[in-house]
Amino acid sequence: MALVVQKFGGTSVGSTEKIKNVARRVISEKEKGNDVVVVVSAMSGETNKLVAMAGEIAESPSEREYDVLVSTGEQVTIALLAIALHDMGQSAVSYTASQVKITTDSAHSKARIKSIDSEKIHKDLSEGRIVVVAGFQGADEDGNLTTLGRGGSDTSAVAIAAALKADVCDIYTDVEGVYTTDPTICENARKLDRIAYDEMLEMASLGAKVLQTRSVEFAKKYNVPIHVRSTFSENTGTMVTREDKSMEEVAVSGIAYNKDEAKITIIRVPDTPGIAAKLFGPISDANINVDMIIQNVSEDGHTDMTFTVPKGDFKKAMSLVEKAGEELGAKGVAGDPNISKVSVIGVGMRSHAGIASSVFDAFSKEGINILMISTSEIKVSCVVKSKYTELAVRVLHDTFKLGDREVKEETW
Amino acid sequence: MALVVQKFGGTSVGSTEKIKNVARRVISEKEKGNDVVVVVSAMSGETNKLVAMAGEIAESPSEREYDVLVSTGEQVTIALLAIALHDMGQSAVSYTASQVKITTDSAHSKARIKSIDSEKIHKDLSEGRIVVVAGFQGADEDGNLTTLGRGGSDTSAVAIAAALKADVCDIYTDVEGVYTTDPTICENARKLDRIAYDEMLEMASLGAKVLQTRSVEFAKKYNVPIHVRSTFSENTGTMVTREDKSMEEVAVSGIAYNKDEAKITIIRVPDTPGIAAKLFGPISDANINVDMIIQNVSEDGHTDMTFTVPKGDFKKAMSLVEKAGEELGAKGVAGDPNISKVSVIGVGMRSHAGIASSVFDAFSKEGINILMISTSEIKVSCVVKSKYTELAVRVLHDTFKLGDREVKEETW
Repeated sequence: MALVVQKFGGTSVGSTEKIKNVARRVISEKEKGNDVVVVVSAMSGETNKLVAMAGEIAESPSEREYDVLVSTGEQVTIALLAIALHDMGQSAVSYTASQVKITTDSAHSKARIKSIDSEKIHKDLSEGRIVVVAGFQGADEDGNLTTLGRGGSDTSAVAIAAALKADVCDIYTDVEGVYTTDPTICENARKLDRIAYDEMLEMASLGAKVLQTRSVEFAKKYNVPIHVRSTFSENTGTMVTREDKSMEEVAVSGIAYNKDEAKITIIRVPDTPGIAAKLFGPISDANINVDMIIQNVSEDGHTDMTFTVPKGDFKKAMSLVEKAGEELGAKGVAGDPNISKVSVIGVGMRSHAGIASSVFDAFSKEGINILMISTSEIKVSCVVKSKYTELAVRVLHDTFKLGDREVKEETW
Repeated sequence: MALVVQKFGGTSVGSTEKIKNVARRVISEKEKGNDVVVVVSAMSGETNKLVAMAGEIAESPSEREYDVLVSTGEQVTIALLAIALHDMGQSAVSYTASQVKITTDSAHSKARIKSIDSEKIHKDLSEGRIVVVAGFQGADEDGNLTTLGRGGSDTSAVAIAAALKADVCDIYTDVEGVYTTDPTICENARKLDRIAYDEMLEMASLGAKVLQTRSVEFAKKYNVPIHVRSTFSENTGTMVTREDKSMEEVAVSGIAYNKDEAKITIIRVPDTPGIAAKLFGPISDANINVDMIIQNVSEDGHTDMTFTVPKGDFKKAMSLVEKAGEELGAKGVAGDPNISKVSVIGVGMRSHAGIASSVFDAFSKEGINILMISTSEIKVSCVVKSKYTELAVRVLHDTFKLGDREVKEETW
């Protein structure tokens, strides 16, 4: 008998009919003899409806009250799912985050979970009940309602699985699992049976949208195995787990890409100590996340510095950098929002040499110019012109033989 | 400086535009220098929408989960109202019932309030905040969410006013106050400036729909003055307060009616001890409320017994009584769903004689046959055929000179 935490997202619970389907799915898990805790999101569209009402009232709604508002979405779902389970003859009980003391910090709309009181849930499970918990929400130590940010239900599910020491956390989604790359770009993309937490983190943060980054960090920290699988089929999906020997045998696990960045270069800035601080201080103060940073070798006391920011922050970042550039005596500032980052990911890189040069070779053969390069122990990321994104992904997917079958070159 | 609790119902908060209006209303009270606590219902239509979803999933939804579901309605309103108050530059904070520990028993969907933790609210008020509390909901001692039943927001408001020792509880509604009778029946019905709790209780339970009965009981018990007033005007409404000398000077305060009852007579039942128990036991077990009961003088060891039940329970009650009648050896059972109860109400009756006979006289002059009579210290109720309801109300209203002006008889 296992303890299974199941998480169903907004699309899976998007109507009363779909909620009944989820209930049947939950019951089939329970009937295998397992203890089941279910974490659900708001019905799809519901959160947007609530946000729209807030927008009709105020341009920038109070953050505390915004969380009070949107957390009703998940409360509706837990009640409806518990009603469905009861109606199907199951003993079930729903809990809001406050009721099972999912305690977070007080950072409204992006709160972080600090602790969960597992006692109540364990008691219900031991009495044979299915426990339904609202995802996405929490309460701070003073009892104020908080939310974890978009995709936060994944984090709720993993945190609950960790607190309960569950055997597995099933994340139900609209895809069959985690793929070697985006199947819409690369038709022979292959579903992975297993992937290491660190690989998943790179896949997630680099643009694969299956799991929320923070939930994977949580799973890694508490060693919770995640099973990413489809709501619409019974197939086994992808297990996201701790790294093991067998994973190291494969050099590359997947190819990720991110079209949502822009590149800024500050040209011929005097290479004196403290430049970086003067340049990135104001950007950080404006809450803009800088991703890659590259600094060229200094020539006659001057250097070029290039970095990437989210595309949505490009204009704001440009004006901050132009101002800093003047103060620092730079020659100029250049920006390009039409770039993409394409990355090769694999924990096996630690023991396999030559991955980066294979990437450069492959791009060179296709005439794809590399604008920036950044590497870590388990990834190689290249910034290229956006127009090359799909080509670059397919070339790398092929180079590292990730596909499950040969695809003729003409289909590219 | 006063402490004012204001309650706004579903119609008053039925859209984001209306919520903004309520916010302005709240602020104008605050700007008089008063401390303000606001209790709100779900936006009109919202609760029905939630109930409909539950109905799509189960015919008789789990009571516990039903409460989890419908209590989201009020949570949406408190958040939106607090957002509006913030946007208008006020310091405001919203609380669900759980957050201010509105503790109830565990009778889902008709829970009774046991206690409220006023400390948190007092602290916010002392720091200059407007406090917005969700009506209708509570939580039992184990933290399970409960609701108080339809109209429960009135009770929430009065209970909060009692706990805070507020100076007044303003109940905002879509009428100008409590009238001597239904203005849609009697065009010279007059708005009352004041009415005693006991009178209001009779008015409420006898069919005037302004205030929920339980909220008035609560107000009476804790001596909370209620001000029933209009959301749509600045006029003074009706104060519902403790009885005083001046009220006793007036014999009759108002005329109420109730078309929602039906009459059942059990004919020539042997008049032996225990009949009533055998007759009303099964009715009570079926959760049917019996209102008036009249037993005729016994003749040759037999008696007739007549009573009223809610019209919705008429059929069920008839079949129970027919069964009991057979067992008791009664001659037969007769039922009539086409009746109304018309009542004259006033605490002044305690010191004014002859009210009942004035009622009988007035009915007799108009040829209205009285089917049943029931009296208490402060009311005289008569059951008449439904078709006479409006006529009976107008006749009594006129007899006791309750109108604010003469109305020519032809307009009846």
